[in-house]
Amino acid sequence: MKIISTVNLKTLLDDLKSEFSDHDWIERSSLDDLTEDDLKTVEVLIAYDSELDVTQMPKLKWLVWYAAGVNRLQLQYMKEHGIILTNAKGIHKIQIAEFIFAYIMADYKHLDEFHELQQTRSYKTNIRTTELFESVICFLGTGEIAVRAARLAQAFGMKTIGINTDGRSIEHFDETVQLADRETAFREADIIVNVLPETEQTTELLTMNDFKAMGDSALFINVGRGTVVNESVLIAALTNRVIRKAALDVYYDEPLDSSHPLYELDNVIMTPHITGLSRRYNERATEILKQNMRMGIDNSDKFVNLVDYDKGY
Amino acid sequence: MKIISTVNLKTLLDDLKSEFSDHDWIERSSLDDLTEDDLKTVEVLIAYDSELDVTQMPKLKWLVWYAAGVNRLQLQYMKEHGIILTNAKGIHKIQIAEFIFAYIMADYKHLDEFHELQQTRSYKTNIRTTELFESVICFLGTGEIAVRAARLAQAFGMKTIGINTDGRSIEHFDETVQLADRETAFREADIIVNVLPETEQTTELLTMNDFKAMGDSALFINVGRGTVVNESVLIAALTNRVIRKAALDVYYDEPLDSSHPLYELDNVIMTPHITGLSRRYNERATEILKQNMRMGIDNSDKFVNLVDYDKGY
Repeated sequence: MKIISTVNLKTLLDDLKSEFSDHDWIERSSLDDLTEDDLKTVEVLIAYDSELDVTQMPKLKWLVWYAAGVNRLQLQYMKEHGIILTNAKGIHKIQIAEFIFAYIMADYKHLDEFHELQQTRSYKTNIRTTELFESVICFLGTGEIAVRAARLAQAFGMKTIGINTDGRSIEHFDETVQLADRETAFREADIIVNVLPETEQTTELLTMNDFKAMGDSALFINVGRGTVVNESVLIAALTNRVIRKAALDVYYDEPLDSSHPLYELDNVIMTPHITGLSRRYNERATEILKQNMRMGIDNSDKFVNLVDYDKGY
Repeated sequence: MKIISTVNLKTLLDDLKSEFSDHDWIERSSLDDLTEDDLKTVEVLIAYDSELDVTQMPKLKWLVWYAAGVNRLQLQYMKEHGIILTNAKGIHKIQIAEFIFAYIMADYKHLDEFHELQQTRSYKTNIRTTELFESVICFLGTGEIAVRAARLAQAFGMKTIGINTDGRSIEHFDETVQLADRETAFREADIIVNVLPETEQTTELLTMNDFKAMGDSALFINVGRGTVVNESVLIAALTNRVIRKAALDVYYDEPLDSSHPLYELDNVIMTPHITGLSRRYNERATEILKQNMRMGIDNSDKFVNLVDYDKGY
């Protein structure tokens, strides 16, 4: 097969070439660098740039998506044309779970304040930090990222609550609640973490009533998708101290414009959609690709991380 | 007994008065507020201010020390005069173990850099953070704080090494090494955490050779005592990038003077000896006092947290 990678795989590509040497491996630095011939002949494409237009690739059999979210891809077209789609789901859990605790530490341990003290050479010992121990953390979504973060939370002695569609029990959650009853969980929680993917059901799911339930001592962390809440609602909740603070890695429209009103607020921690990144990201995504290559495209129904076009994940 | 507290116990004192009502409980806002009569008559003193001079208290039977470190107290005098000494050891482990991970997150997840990006409204996604997962953390000391932090480290998927006098195995350490062989452990570790108390044996224990063994990618965290290293050695190790970075909560002489050369360095995270503080500190220390009060002073040999004058802890 003619396999083109638009992801810079470095030595990982050498590994692939050597293990799967009966295929034709080509590397391009980006989608823009694909030639007319590439577009016409590519059978397997490795990519994670959502500008991708698969309708230009008549021979495409398999899109190896090196990101998790597939909601911006041409799912209907791919379904109709039988183009296999696999994604990188599951390789974000380690780094995102860790970053959830980075946000919590930044907030609970007043790291900015101590940094400021150090800069001003001030030795003030009257800052009282907050303990994670015995606090309550609630995850909106109970997928792999939430499970890993919940396991860490339990190690810290926190109580963990998971919210999913039907309230089914999941390991590492002390309690699970169905989505319809989420306000009860929000009321109890000190920290609420959104890890939901973007789907029709999750778009603008959270309303002002949800933030009211979280309450004015709550820290809201969003490492899922920015579209889970209409940003004007979130900004109102923060401005009016309906919730205490937010830590955001994702936004309704990315990249964020420098004039965005979120930048005006003093009770938000912002990172530029980086919690899923890792120095070992490509290594892990390539591991999934290798597993599927070993299975062979004729067994694509058994592929790891096969995306269901209709569910959208 | 005449029991004087110089710690502001608020409602906790009411609890003590009500449970142990056959004693005479007195509250003073500080050591300086003790009257001549207080000094002459006090039998049990609750305190954590190291300016304390027990030689002024002829009737003192029991010093209830609400801090952990007792090295600055008049241990020899107390031993000779049979003054019982209990401390607050063990109530720091939750908050200090958490703060160790706050330092690690601040460093590994580049929190200052992201804070700076946010301040400048810059959406730069090219910062690569480091994972705790599969990194190696080494604790100098394997007491309660280290054990709790090592348990958290294992939850993050880190390898844990403990260093103690004889290399005895301790739970939650994947390996233990005796103090004499510490350089091997330092060489393997990405993060080295000092949690040792100050004793004659630990004073200026670490030399430049230790920092050389840690190496130029190492993060050194000190939440034990500042005297574990001569500060000029530490400053040289940081200035010459013998180690990559330090996170310090404790210093050779505290409080730190604003002209201290540590403030000049760009590869140190500094907090003003606060990792042991907690909103629940007095509650936890009072819990120990209550346990001992229930035992009764006649059974002081069975007291919780009885300090050995000779060991100094």
